[in-house]
Amino acid sequence: MPDLWQEAMDHAVAVARKAGEVVREALQNERKVMCKSTSVDLVTKTDQKVEQLIITSVKEKFPTHSFIGEESVADGQPCVLSENPTWIIDPVDGTTNFVHGYPFVAVCIGFAVEKTLEFGVVYSCIEDKMYTARRGKGAFCNGEPLQVSHQKEINQSMIATEFGSDRDPDVVDKIFSNMRKILCLPVHGMRGLGSAALNMCQVAAGRVEAYYEIGIHCWDVAAAAVIVEEAGGVLLDFEGGPMDLMSRRIVAANNQTIAERVIKELVAFPAVRDDAPLETKQ
Amino acid sequence: MPDLWQEAMDHAVAVARKAGEVVREALQNERKVMCKSTSVDLVTKTDQKVEQLIITSVKEKFPTHSFIGEESVADGQPCVLSENPTWIIDPVDGTTNFVHGYPFVAVCIGFAVEKTLEFGVVYSCIEDKMYTARRGKGAFCNGEPLQVSHQKEINQSMIATEFGSDRDPDVVDKIFSNMRKILCLPVHGMRGLGSAALNMCQVAAGRVEAYYEIGIHCWDVAAAAVIVEEAGGVLLDFEGGPMDLMSRRIVAANNQTIAERVIKELVAFPAVRDDAPLETKQ
Repeated sequence: MPDLWQEAMDHAVAVARKAGEVVREALQNERKVMCKSTSVDLVTKTDQKVEQLIITSVKEKFPTHSFIGEESVADGQPCVLSENPTWIIDPVDGTTNFVHGYPFVAVCIGFAVEKTLEFGVVYSCIEDKMYTARRGKGAFCNGEPLQVSHQKEINQSMIATEFGSDRDPDVVDKIFSNMRKILCLPVHGMRGLGSAALNMCQVAAGRVEAYYEIGIHCWDVAAAAVIVEEAGGVLLDFEGGPMDLMSRRIVAANNQTIAERVIKELVAFPAVRDDAPLETKQ
Repeated sequence: MPDLWQEAMDHAVAVARKAGEVVREALQNERKVMCKSTSVDLVTKTDQKVEQLIITSVKEKFPTHSFIGEESVADGQPCVLSENPTWIIDPVDGTTNFVHGYPFVAVCIGFAVEKTLEFGVVYSCIEDKMYTARRGKGAFCNGEPLQVSHQKEINQSMIATEFGSDRDPDVVDKIFSNMRKILCLPVHGMRGLGSAALNMCQVAAGRVEAYYEIGIHCWDVAAAAVIVEEAGGVLLDFEGGPMDLMSRRIVAANNQTIAERVIKELVAFPAVRDDAPLETKQ
């Protein structure tokens, strides 16, 4: 049913733009009067408001579809991908950026049918960059086609990752150890915008060769995953197999050569799967 | 002679914009046909072309002024700040970004008289953001006033730094050790755009609380230094004293409290001063 999914994608783009406006307004108007104790509240409030806006709007048009949303899952909803058409939503990717007004904040909407991602929309709402991709139809930013880098030499590459939000010393040890090994391959440089989705869009745009991270959630990467693949890139697990959306780990790269070279350096550390039973997540 | 320096600043803004156009065109047109072996050449070519454009244009209007420019110094010109009005130029700050098309590349023009910085212009030419500040007159981005963050709690702060380009294991050790200590203070997060000047502009804009780095050059930070101070921020050396423009080390922060808290964690490592005699730099 290709036409139906195109309609769904058009709807996703429209609602992402509308959601982005809400995020932008929250940043511009409310952040000014915010003190530190209210900044976390503002994130939660905006997250919830934007996710509701998206889900309500989609439900009206596609009443039988399913949803996986960051806030819904936080609220106790299951995080399981069924065969049913499913919208995977991160209302505000880059929440720390949001709190600080650091201008890389994205509304992410991925869409899967029979567990296959069909399209992805990542709206970088401060930059006003709309990244979109539909399976088999290419990837675009504001309508311009995206193409991954052709680079195959790791020592000519730039790699994106994040320090993450976990400050547990063992986790920090492993994150720094991985970073150091990648840096000293050597690579040209390492970057991180503070948003998984936007880091992946940099891979799609050919600006960094690879992005890796442990600790991300399915809603952080589902939409951008389609964009990376449609721009010619690859998505792998830390073991070198295909990306497992629920595994909390991802390597997105311009090609298999760079992806495998990065994976060779990385040591994974445990992260509870997104689709683990609720009681094991406590 | 305040009117004269305003004229100089207007000229700096105009020429930075023109220079930014050249950088942008080099990226858009030439990078497409570039293979890895030519990317370094493109940087050098663009750096030299842009620096010459700026110096030629300034010399015509201010024939008695002095210059410190990245490319001129690389070419053997002295890097000494005299009492004479001096233009301190980085034609392309963020050269690794430039090579990769990562969109944070800045033309930097600082201006000092009697060794005091009078104005700074940082043009983020892909984003089309013109950061400007004149001593005593405030800091602006595209005409909008800039103001540092009011945050005084380090654990509510975001800190910017870079991995740098040195891959010497001892240097990398020290960079990672500093990063880890800062991250685990803990802070909200760490970011780096790959351009010293643009990291400092994030401090000025209140998006990160502090930026620190060892290994930067005077032309990377001179222009942005005025922008940070005029936005209400502070500039310190790693020892806590005032910034020494030639020392290759800087801490730029929203206030003294955050600056000192950051400095307390940092361990400096040696870097040859920018104004060291040429023979000691070999």
